[in-house]
Amino acid sequence: MEKRGFGSDNGSGIHPKVLKAITEVNKGHSVAYGYDKHTEAAIRKFREHLGEKVDVYFVFNGTAANTLGLQGLVRSYNSVICADCAHLNVDECGSPEKFLGCKLIPIKTSDGKITPGQIIEMLADVGFEHRVQPMAVSITQPTEYGTLYTVKEVRAIAKVAHGNNLYLHMDGARIANAAAALGITLKGATFDCGVDVLSFGGTKNGLMLGDAVVFRDSKLAGEFKYVRKQGMQLASKMRFISAQFVALLSDDLWLENAQHSNRMAKLLADRVSDVPEVRITQKVQTNAVFAAIPKSWISKLMKEYFFYIWDESTSEVRWMTSFDTAEEDVDKFAEYLRKLGGR
Amino acid sequence: MEKRGFGSDNGSGIHPKVLKAITEVNKGHSVAYGYDKHTEAAIRKFREHLGEKVDVYFVFNGTAANTLGLQGLVRSYNSVICADCAHLNVDECGSPEKFLGCKLIPIKTSDGKITPGQIIEMLADVGFEHRVQPMAVSITQPTEYGTLYTVKEVRAIAKVAHGNNLYLHMDGARIANAAAALGITLKGATFDCGVDVLSFGGTKNGLMLGDAVVFRDSKLAGEFKYVRKQGMQLASKMRFISAQFVALLSDDLWLENAQHSNRMAKLLADRVSDVPEVRITQKVQTNAVFAAIPKSWISKLMKEYFFYIWDESTSEVRWMTSFDTAEEDVDKFAEYLRKLGGR
Amino acid sequence: MEKRGFGSDNGSGIHPKVLKAITEVNKGHSVAYGYDKHTEAAIRKFREHLGEKVDVYFVFNGTAANTLGLQGLVRSYNSVICADCAHLNVDECGSPEKFLGCKLIPIKTSDGKITPGQIIEMLADVGFEHRVQPMAVSITQPTEYGTLYTVKEVRAIAKVAHGNNLYLHMDGARIANAAAALGITLKGATFDCGVDVLSFGGTKNGLMLGDAVVFRDSKLAGEFKYVRKQGMQLASKMRFISAQFVALLSDDLWLENAQHSNRMAKLLADRVSDVPEVRITQKVQTNAVFAAIPKSWISKLMKEYFFYIWDESTSEVRWMTSFDTAEEDVDKFAEYLRKLGGR
Amino acid sequence: MEKRGFGSDNGSGIHPKVLKAITEVNKGHSVAYGYDKHTEAAIRKFREHLGEKVDVYFVFNGTAANTLGLQGLVRSYNSVICADCAHLNVDECGSPEKFLGCKLIPIKTSDGKITPGQIIEMLADVGFEHRVQPMAVSITQPTEYGTLYTVKEVRAIAKVAHGNNLYLHMDGARIANAAAALGITLKGATFDCGVDVLSFGGTKNGLMLGDAVVFRDSKLAGEFKYVRKQGMQLASKMRFISAQFVALLSDDLWLENAQHSNRMAKLLADRVSDVPEVRITQKVQTNAVFAAIPKSWISKLMKEYFFYIWDESTSEVRWMTSFDTAEEDVDKFAEYLRKLGGR
Repeated sequence: MEKRGFGSDNGSGIHPKVLKAITEVNKGHSVAYGYDKHTEAAIRKFREHLGEKVDVYFVFNGTAANTLGLQGLVRSYNSVICADCAHLNVDECGSPEKFLGCKLIPIKTSDGKITPGQIIEMLADVGFEHRVQPMAVSITQPTEYGTLYTVKEVRAIAKVAHGNNLYLHMDGARIANAAAALGITLKGATFDCGVDVLSFGGTKNGLMLGDAVVFRDSKLAGEFKYVRKQGMQLASKMRFISAQFVALLSDDLWLENAQHSNRMAKLLADRVSDVPEVRITQKVQTNAVFAAIPKSWISKLMKEYFFYIWDESTSEVRWMTSFDTAEEDVDKFAEYLRKLGGR
Repeated sequence: MEKRGFGSDNGSGIHPKVLKAITEVNKGHSVAYGYDKHTEAAIRKFREHLGEKVDVYFVFNGTAANTLGLQGLVRSYNSVICADCAHLNVDECGSPEKFLGCKLIPIKTSDGKITPGQIIEMLADVGFEHRVQPMAVSITQPTEYGTLYTVKEVRAIAKVAHGNNLYLHMDGARIANAAAALGITLKGATFDCGVDVLSFGGTKNGLMLGDAVVFRDSKLAGEFKYVRKQGMQLASKMRFISAQFVALLSDDLWLENAQHSNRMAKLLADRVSDVPEVRITQKVQTNAVFAAIPKSWISKLMKEYFFYIWDESTSEVRWMTSFDTAEEDVDKFAEYLRKLGGR
Repeated sequence: MEKRGFGSDNGSGIHPKVLKAITEVNKGHSVAYGYDKHTEAAIRKFREHLGEKVDVYFVFNGTAANTLGLQGLVRSYNSVICADCAHLNVDECGSPEKFLGCKLIPIKTSDGKITPGQIIEMLADVGFEHRVQPMAVSITQPTEYGTLYTVKEVRAIAKVAHGNNLYLHMDGARIANAAAALGITLKGATFDCGVDVLSFGGTKNGLMLGDAVVFRDSKLAGEFKYVRKQGMQLASKMRFISAQFVALLSDDLWLENAQHSNRMAKLLADRVSDVPEVRITQKVQTNAVFAAIPKSWISKLMKEYFFYIWDESTSEVRWMTSFDTAEEDVDKFAEYLRKLGGR
Repeated sequence: MEKRGFGSDNGSGIHPKVLKAITEVNKGHSVAYGYDKHTEAAIRKFREHLGEKVDVYFVFNGTAANTLGLQGLVRSYNSVICADCAHLNVDECGSPEKFLGCKLIPIKTSDGKITPGQIIEMLADVGFEHRVQPMAVSITQPTEYGTLYTVKEVRAIAKVAHGNNLYLHMDGARIANAAAALGITLKGATFDCGVDVLSFGGTKNGLMLGDAVVFRDSKLAGEFKYVRKQGMQLASKMRFISAQFVALLSDDLWLENAQHSNRMAKLLADRVSDVPEVRITQKVQTNAVFAAIPKSWISKLMKEYFFYIWDESTSEVRWMTSFDTAEEDVDKFAEYLRKLGGR
C-alpha cells in the first residue's frame, strides 16, 4: 500500500463514495457541458446547503474558482484587497493579474486574517484616477495558516465591504473544514455572513477534482457562463464532476471528511507537543499544523515525508491532514519526529 | 440503461479500462501537481507514441489545450491563421483573443481544410506595424467536418509555415480518429508531418477528462509550466488524469476506440444512404456525419436524439459517433429517420 | 517650402489657428491631467456641438479613441461587429483584441458600409456560451473608402443595434468631413442618429494631435476616467490638447477645414477624369479618392508622391486630400499623372 | 500672467525653444508615423547622448513609456520588482497589470531606493511554478521622493539583476534632473550603469508632451514597433514630437532646464529652513521638496497653491519645481508659508 503523508490534502486520493458516484453515472450518453440531470442534481444539493437563490458553476480547480469568480465582479482598473499570504496573491502564478488585468492589494497579516480597519486604510484613493479602485475584498476561510475567522469577524468584514461598495469574495478551498470547526452549516459559514461569491472547494475534501463558484444570486452571477467557457473551465463531460459533488453533499460526507481531517490535525499537534524542538506557530483550528522545527531536521524528515517549507528563514513548515489520514499515520509521524530528536 | 446518441463524442462516458485505471491509482497519497510516478509513466507513454523528445503537459480540456498551447508561441501583436470554422475561432467563446490577446485570421473553407496558397495570401503585411503579424498556423485534424488532411497536405502546410517563420499548431481533439483513418501512427500523423505544437485530445476518445499540450521539443515548450499554472490548468491530483492517459495509450486502446467510432460513422452514413431526404454533405472520413435533412424533421428527430444543427439556413446537421456507439444504436437511429420519411 | 502630397490627411501639419491656440495657452502653470480651465472650455465647446449631456474625454490618437471607447462597453466574452475593412479590424495592430480581450466580427463589404440585415445575421448565437456575445456595432463615418452612410442608414443601424441590446460606436476619425459632406451639424451626424459612443477625430482635421471619446451621456461613460488613465492616454499637460479642440470647434474651423478637403478630393477626381488609365473605384463623397491605375505607374508616381496602395492585386490606390491641400497641388498631381500616361 | 506653482513639473508649459521647434517643422506634408526626417534627426540626437547602438521609440507619456517598455521584456507569468512607491506601482491605475498581465513585486523603502539585497530576497521562488517569475527590476531615477541613486548604487543593482537573469528598467521620467544633479552625462546616468531599458522623460522637462522608450540595443528592442502601435502610442504626426526632442537635446537645453529646476528646489528648501513648523523629510537632491507641515496649514496653503499631499497621516506634502520656476516664485511661496506661521 502506498503511504499517506502530510504534504497537502491535495496528496490524498478520491473518497470511495465519490469514486462510486463517478462509476454509477458512467452509463450511456449525457448531454455535454452541464445540461444533464446529474448536474441539475448537484446544483440542487448546493441550494439545499447554501440557499435556494445561489447560482452554482463548476470549474476544474481552485485557481479557476478564485480567478474567474472575481472576474465577473471587477474591471481591469479595479483592485482586490486580500491578505498578503492569500493563495490568490502568492500561489496562482499571477493568474488574477493576467485574467482580471487588475492589481491585488495585499494586507500584511501574521495569521492570515485581515481586519475591517485594515480594509478601510486601503480606501484612501477612491475616486483618484491615478490609482486602481478597490472593488472586492477576498478572504480565505480557513486561512492559508489553517486559522479561522469567527462568524462575527466575517460579518464585520462584510459590513465594511458592503458599506464601501465592495464585494466580499471568500476563498473556500477548505470551507468544509471551517464550517466543521465552527460547528455551523455551510450557509452559516458563508452567505449568512455576507459573502457575495464563494470559491467552494471540493478537491481538497475527497473529490478527484472539482471546485465550484457560487454566487449569492443570479444577478451577481450575471453572465458567468461566458466567463467560465472563455476561461477554459467548462467541462464537456460535466456529469462526472457533478456526481462527485452530489456524493460530497449527501449524507454529511463533506462534514465527516472535514471533521476527520480537523481531528487528525489536532491529534498531530497533540502528539508532537512533547517534542521540545517542535514549536507550533499557529493555532491549530482546522486541518493544518504549522511548526518551527530545527533546520537540520528538515532534510531528514523530507526523506520519509513530503511537505512544504513555509519559511526557510525560520524553518517553519506546514503539515496538512486529510480525510484519509489515519491515527496510525499520525502516530508514526510523531514517532519519527521524536526519533529525530534522539528520543 | 441510458441511451446513447449522436450528439457528440463528448456525450459518451468513460471507457471501462480508463475508469479501472483511475480506480487503481486511488491508493495512498501522491505528490500533487504532477510530480508523481503515474504522471511520469504517462509522459513515457506519450514519448513512445510521439517521439522521445516531445514535451507533454496535461490540461483539463480542449479549449485550454488550444489556447495555452498557442500562448507560448505568440505575443499579443501576432496573429494565428486558421480555418474560419476552426473550433479555436468559433467555439471557444473568444478564449484565444482573451488569453493570447491576439487576432485570429480566419480562412474561408468549405470542408474545414486550408491550403498553403491561402496561408501565403495572409502574409502580405509582414513588417507593417499597423497590422498584426502572423506567427502560427493552426489546423484541425480531423477537421470540424470530420474530413482529413492527407499526410502530404499537412506536410505542405508545415513547409509553407516554416518557410515563413510560422509555427504549425494542430488541434488534435480527435487526432486518434485521424491516425486510425489514415492507417498511420500518432507520430506519423503529427510531428512527422512537421507539427510544432499538438493539442492531443483524450476526452473525446474515452477519457473522463483530460487533454494534452505536446511540444515538438523542450525548447519549444519553453516556460510552459508557468503558462499552464497561470492558465488555471494545473491539476493538483494529477495522477488521476495521468492514469487515464496511460490506459488510453496502452494496448492500442486509443486505436481501437478511434477505429470503432470511425467505423460507426461510416455505418451510419451507409444506413441512411437509402433515405432520399438525407443528403450527406461532407466526406465521412472519421467519426462525423454531416447531412442536410428536411427542416421539418429536425424537431421531430430532436425529440428522440440530441444533436447539433450546423447550419440553420440549409438545415445541415451533425451526427457524431463515439467509442461506445453500438451497431444497434446506428440501426435504431437510421430506422427512426426512415420512419420520419414515412417508410 | 516642403511639398504637400496625397498620402494621408495625417501627412498634413497643424492649422495655423490651432498652433496659435497652443501658443496662447502656454502661459504660467496649470493643474495637470485635465483639471484646468482650457479643458473645461473645450468640453463646453463639445457640448455646444454635440449636445449638453455628452461626456468628453481627450486621448492622444484614433487607435486609443476606438479601442478605449469600446472598452467601457464590452467584456472580454463579447464581440464587436464591424466592417471587414474597419480601421479597428485591420489597422490597429490588434489593439482591440489585446485591450478589450474580445473578438471582432467582420462583415464583408465592398464600399465600407454595413447594413442592418448583415448585423442581424451575426446574432444567431446569442445566449450560446460557446460563442462570443455581440455587444456593440462599430461603423466608420465616413468609411475607410471615403464613402458615406446617409443619416437614414445610420439611424437604421442604430435601430437594429438598440433593438438587439447592442451599443452603436462610430469611428469618426473624419466625422467633420462626413458632417460637412452631408450638410448637417456634428450632432446631426452622430448622436441624433443614435450613436452611443463616438471617436471624434481631431488629428486628421488640422490638429497637431488629439482625438476625443464622446459618450452619449455620463451614465454610458461610466468609469471611463479610469479606463483612460490605465489605457495610457491621460495627458498631463492636457491644456495643450484642449486648446486645440477649442480652436477647431470655434468659428467653424472644423467645418471649413472639412469642406475644403472634401472639395479638393472632388477636384482631384475631376482633374483625373480624363485620364483613361485611371479608374475611380469608389464614390468620392468626402476627402478620399480611390483609383485603380496601371501597375507600372505606381512606382513612378511613388518617386514624387507618397501614398498607400490599397490593393496590390488590383493596383488600387488611395489618395487623400487635407485641410491644407491647395488647388495647385491637385493640378500638379493630375498633370504628373497625365504625363505618366504619355500625355 | 498666470501663476506658477509647485504642484508638479507637469504644471509647467512648453519651453519657448521647444515651441519654436514645433512651429518650425509645421511646413508642408511629412510621411506619417515616424518615417520622416525630423524623427530621424531626433533619433540621431538620442544616439549622440545615449550611445550609437540605442533604439529609440517615442510615445505620448510616461505611463506608456513604463508599461510598454516593460511589455517587450516580460511574459504574463513574470514579475517586475520595484519600489513600493514606484510610479509604476501606485500611479498608473494598474496599467502594468492590465497590459503586461503580470504582477509587480513591491519592495518597502523609506526614500524610494531599493538595494541589491532586497532584490535577492525576492528571488526565492525562481523555478517554482506556483509563483510568478521575476524578469525585471525597475528603478526610478531620481526616485518619487526626488532622491538619487549614486552611479555606484545603480551599477550594483544592475549587477545583481543581470547576475540573476533580470533586466534593468529605469523610469527616467526626470532622468535629466538626475544627470544634472550627479554632474554626469545622460549616458553616464543610464546605459553606462547597466540599464537595459529606459523611460526617458520629456514632458516634465519642458516639452508639450512626449517621452521615449530607449533600449540598450536593437536586439533588446525586438519587435517593439508592434508593441507601440498596438499599445495605442504611435503618433501619426510624429514630427511634432520628434522636433521637441531635437530641441531638448540640442544646445544643452535638457541640462539647463534640469539644473535650473534642481537649483530652485534647493532654494525652496533653503528659504523655508527657518520656518520651524516645516520639516524637510527627504534629501533635496533634484527638483522635489518633501516636507511635513502642520495639518492646519494645508488647506490654507492650498487656497493659493495647488500641490499634492503625500501622506495624509503625517501631513507630508510634495512641492515640485520646474524649468520655469522663478526665484521670485520661490520667495513668494516661502513668504506665504512664513505668514501662515504668523511671522
